[in-house]
Amino acid sequence: MADKQSTKPPGGTRDFLPDDVRRREHVIGVVRGVYERYGFEPLETPAFENIETLLGKYGEEGNKLIFKILKRGEHEGTGEADLALRYDLTVPLARVVAQYQNELPKFFKRYQIQPVWRADRPARGRFREFYQCDIDAMGSTSPVVEAEILSAVSEVLATLGFNDFTVRLNHRAALTGLLETAGVAAAGHADALVALDKLDKIGPQAVAAELTNRGIAADVAAKCLLLFAEEQGGAEAPLDRLATLLRAHDAGAKGAAELRQIVALAEGTAAAGRIRVDPSLARGLSYYTGAIMEIAVPDLAGSLGGGGRYDNLIGMFLGRDIPACGFSLGLERIIVVMTERNMFPAAVAGGAADVMVTLWNDDARADALALAGELRKSGLRVDVYPEADKLGKQFKYASSRNVPCVAIVGDDERAQGIVAIKDMKSGEQTAVPRADAAAFVARKLELRS
Amino acid sequence: MADKQSTKPPGGTRDFLPDDVRRREHVIGVVRGVYERYGFEPLETPAFENIETLLGKYGEEGNKLIFKILKRGEHEGTGEADLALRYDLTVPLARVVAQYQNELPKFFKRYQIQPVWRADRPARGRFREFYQCDIDAMGSTSPVVEAEILSAVSEVLATLGFNDFTVRLNHRAALTGLLETAGVAAAGHADALVALDKLDKIGPQAVAAELTNRGIAADVAAKCLLLFAEEQGGAEAPLDRLATLLRAHDAGAKGAAELRQIVALAEGTAAAGRIRVDPSLARGLSYYTGAIMEIAVPDLAGSLGGGGRYDNLIGMFLGRDIPACGFSLGLERIIVVMTERNMFPAAVAGGAADVMVTLWNDDARADALALAGELRKSGLRVDVYPEADKLGKQFKYASSRNVPCVAIVGDDERAQGIVAIKDMKSGEQTAVPRADAAAFVARKLELRS
Repeated sequence: MADKQSTKPPGGTRDFLPDDVRRREHVIGVVRGVYERYGFEPLETPAFENIETLLGKYGEEGNKLIFKILKRGEHEGTGEADLALRYDLTVPLARVVAQYQNELPKFFKRYQIQPVWRADRPARGRFREFYQCDIDAMGSTSPVVEAEILSAVSEVLATLGFNDFTVRLNHRAALTGLLETAGVAAAGHADALVALDKLDKIGPQAVAAELTNRGIAADVAAKCLLLFAEEQGGAEAPLDRLATLLRAHDAGAKGAAELRQIVALAEGTAAAGRIRVDPSLARGLSYYTGAIMEIAVPDLAGSLGGGGRYDNLIGMFLGRDIPACGFSLGLERIIVVMTERNMFPAAVAGGAADVMVTLWNDDARADALALAGELRKSGLRVDVYPEADKLGKQFKYASSRNVPCVAIVGDDERAQGIVAIKDMKSGEQTAVPRADAAAFVARKLELRS
Repeated sequence: MADKQSTKPPGGTRDFLPDDVRRREHVIGVVRGVYERYGFEPLETPAFENIETLLGKYGEEGNKLIFKILKRGEHEGTGEADLALRYDLTVPLARVVAQYQNELPKFFKRYQIQPVWRADRPARGRFREFYQCDIDAMGSTSPVVEAEILSAVSEVLATLGFNDFTVRLNHRAALTGLLETAGVAAAGHADALVALDKLDKIGPQAVAAELTNRGIAADVAAKCLLLFAEEQGGAEAPLDRLATLLRAHDAGAKGAAELRQIVALAEGTAAAGRIRVDPSLARGLSYYTGAIMEIAVPDLAGSLGGGGRYDNLIGMFLGRDIPACGFSLGLERIIVVMTERNMFPAAVAGGAADVMVTLWNDDARADALALAGELRKSGLRVDVYPEADKLGKQFKYASSRNVPCVAIVGDDERAQGIVAIKDMKSGEQTAVPRADAAAFVARKLELRS
């Protein structure tokens, strides 16, 4: 069966070896735990959808990036595709909301952590298979929803160990109000926002140039820069500024007032002190109808996640609107940043097992298994060296796998009812009564972490 | 955006609503916990593989059942497929073992719990997307490996609450030895085993008929039935019987002796009392080279999982053999049986949240969020009713979602620093100091489970 073909995973995908999975599961476990404490419930949908469910939902570019699956069996020859791989978690959610409308609660709050697939050109940090991690709260337009989401997301990041993140916050109506106040025609809004979105990165002069390049008159561009200039100092100053600027713009003023409510509520939650109102935050704009949110850390271009209110999307299969507000955490980026910053607890990076039981000789097999069973009863992760081999070789194996302790029961130890526990870091070996072995190893692990 | 298309998931796939996911996650959590305590490490591979990695690995029938993905972009028109969805977890494991041979430990023990996809005709209990849940221990031929796997699998089932399962055990060499002793020609082994595998279900007469139908002479068929008759009473009697029957068959006798070693070792583990040596157990036979294992419960036709030793498969991309022994738990069947038998703990089926905070009026929003935050700090899952609404309506909503407790902070309660906790089952309402509210709810939950 030898075979010369490549054994790499397909381009743009990754194998997750044990250490990778442990890191990913740590993050996912924290996310899940926090979201459950906030009353979000888990949802999972199939990896593929009927192709017509996805086609046309992501624009022309999106259509091209959808992985399409050949019709099965005798139809394969035609090249026809009838299924397509999940492209995001929002369209499946909209389908689920339509399909189970009579079973789901009025205020359906769900989290979903599953892979999606995009036929993108693979590049550094750009994958064809990656996880999305979404929460969405449906059925209410109350600002309590935004505040709860901002709190939940902040708690996730704080629990993971991020202490330097900022939640940027804006409102679609305020954004539109400012653009209209500046005199940008509706048709130019999208263009203007693409340019204004770069204020942080390229500065006002370059943005002004880009605005005029995109066909916006120089005086309008100048007014834009004036209106969108960021106010320093907490959330209050920019809120006041927005209120003043949008005084004469009904919808804009309403948006600014809503933003103030959200900020006031969120400041009493886990998001306290994190929020920065940023009038230029747009996040692509197209489907947000209310609050727009994004999380950033200083040393990372781009965001760790974003979201907002989108009241016209979740009802796409229902034929009526359902208010919704959601947030998507950038799971893959979070893992990258945490790895770079060495933020994972020792236990997560901590090897395959807590202790390895050595095997003295073939006659000692049953006793090695029994000892392993005793240690496992206390919750320890226990490996058994499967073959009678030189002890030195077994120690070396344990070291190579980062197993911190090794348990040795030779004939003498067995006769005396003791176990020798070797600390693989210090090399120190301690004889302990067999009944105390689990507690002894557990204490070693505690000292270590 | 209204749309008349179906919102059902594609044929043969399922949406998992929150209660479903909680049940699935409970089972997966137990499996993962036990396997980690046995030193198995997690592995995850991409949902799709390069198509040539999978084609030809599952026989002609299998080739047809592989979901194939169209080549991307401008190549879509040709109908050519270059990727294929994961069909099982063994071929990806073999690929990983070849690709990372220098990074993986000598005795690589991995678990993998991921969906696979098969373009099968959907039917009751037969899905196109379903989870597989595999452990495999590579690198050693020691019977310690089999004993550890039998123990781990038994511990999973016991922890899930199964107390009536049996581990059927056989050995490929004993099986072959018995067939040769009965006089079945090598070419007829596969046929004979298909028939003998039905002994349990259709009885000896029907099996004899099927054996002769399959071209096995009547006297050979009769001898088969004699040799494969099951011995009652523990593991010892059939082991002795096998040893006697295979005395004159070198390989068979060696297999029987190995089986005896495995049984002896496993009887000192969590598998104690579960093992039944069954000389007719074949499980399709083709790739097992040593032990063959299967788990059964009395009220279920078919098994809850199976596995065995297969020393010639994992090296398929390496060009050299790697000994391996594995077990695949039937996750989907386990969930079905546990649901039918009502085996899930109350907490798993226990609704979306532990407590719901009501919203008195818009001015009370901030305080409701603050109370939710306090309750969450103690680990409770807390939902907040997002809108000021009639209390009766809020109670009804909590009931419909199986939320056991509701927290009410009206103006009076706030003034007094208390919270009213309503038990949604008894209807009883208790005023508790706000600082004690979390502990009070936690106690209610304990009493409930």
